[in-house]
Amino acid sequence: MRQNQVSYPGLFITFEGGDSCGKSTQVALTHEWLKSRGVTPVLTREPGGTDLGEKLRELILHGPDDMDPRTEALLYSAQRSYHMATKVLPALEAGEVVLQDRYLDSSVAYQGAARALGVEEILELNLWAVKGLVPDVTILLDVDPEIAYARRTGEPDRLEREPNSFQHRVRKQYEELARRYSDRYHIVDASKSIDEIQTEIQQILTPFLEDRLSGANR
Amino acid sequence: MRQNQVSYPGLFITFEGGDSCGKSTQVALTHEWLKSRGVTPVLTREPGGTDLGEKLRELILHGPDDMDPRTEALLYSAQRSYHMATKVLPALEAGEVVLQDRYLDSSVAYQGAARALGVEEILELNLWAVKGLVPDVTILLDVDPEIAYARRTGEPDRLEREPNSFQHRVRKQYEELARRYSDRYHIVDASKSIDEIQTEIQQILTPFLEDRLSGANR
Repeated sequence: MRQNQVSYPGLFITFEGGDSCGKSTQVALTHEWLKSRGVTPVLTREPGGTDLGEKLRELILHGPDDMDPRTEALLYSAQRSYHMATKVLPALEAGEVVLQDRYLDSSVAYQGAARALGVEEILELNLWAVKGLVPDVTILLDVDPEIAYARRTGEPDRLEREPNSFQHRVRKQYEELARRYSDRYHIVDASKSIDEIQTEIQQILTPFLEDRLSGANR
Repeated sequence: MRQNQVSYPGLFITFEGGDSCGKSTQVALTHEWLKSRGVTPVLTREPGGTDLGEKLRELILHGPDDMDPRTEALLYSAQRSYHMATKVLPALEAGEVVLQDRYLDSSVAYQGAARALGVEEILELNLWAVKGLVPDVTILLDVDPEIAYARRTGEPDRLEREPNSFQHRVRKQYEELARRYSDRYHIVDASKSIDEIQTEIQQILTPFLEDRLSGANR
């Protein structure tokens, strides 16, 4: 059931989850799987995905320490509106499959809940920014933050330096979003192995892709 | 009459007007006048006024040509929220006079009216961004765009390349704002000479500054 005010022939798939949930790995594997089945999706991410978006990503992730929660929320929604208008919507209107790492749900989960801003105002701000465009399918990679931490490698950025309780609140917010938008949300247990998770994602996506997929497993 | 939800001992003065209305000159002269009378104001501008704000100013004024009106509005409100939270409000709370070149009225006049966005949504977005902080005094430098054009020097930036009709719509929007916020708005005829305009500005501001001004003309 599509909640969009916008209609298009494409398919809009987003991946969501807390820090170190394994999302990037699963987005990449899903991308490979789709290509192997004859579908070449538009692969993109937020924040980023465009030149302007990448500049804003830098400002957001490595910006000043005194950044106001509203400033952060507005910067996220600014890059989102540009990304949607110049990249995502044109691809969907051309009938393409868009595979996107994070969308407005991330802002609701991260800023709305965990910062000092209300969920409803963040949601309203972001829906305005993207003219009401919501995904057809959202894959939520759900995992206990403690397990996610154990997986972590590399340098933490500004958001990742938040205390543990932050990631627990993010997880709770995602759970609430999944209940609220049960039509498009699909929760995957991300404590499982990479292969198990990917198999589950493929099972979720197959019905949405039926007419597009080629190959032996059709 | 202060419409703010915020209270502070300082004084918040903003300057508004269309392109080439002589605003920068008058802000500078007002600054000099205040200093000569013993008041050292915090002089600032939008977009800009902070490190992050100057970076965003660059992105806005020299950004991609396909920038969506919502993206532009969100970037303006992002720099505004940061500028307000880190520079303007702290100065007002410390009892200072803030002299600011452009504020949220500019977004309403430029984006709300002249772009494809509604005035009410732009106003709502910006009031949210600044937590309801509105100026105590707004000086509107009002001039026919044709006269303003004749004054222009230097390279036009992206916004200045808009066709003539754009500046006429901006002027109309400012007139509507002045009616709506008649408590804080003071319209100055900016077709007059620089000296005449500055004298009028000083007459407008003197009652607000009474307790602060020193010197012969008190």
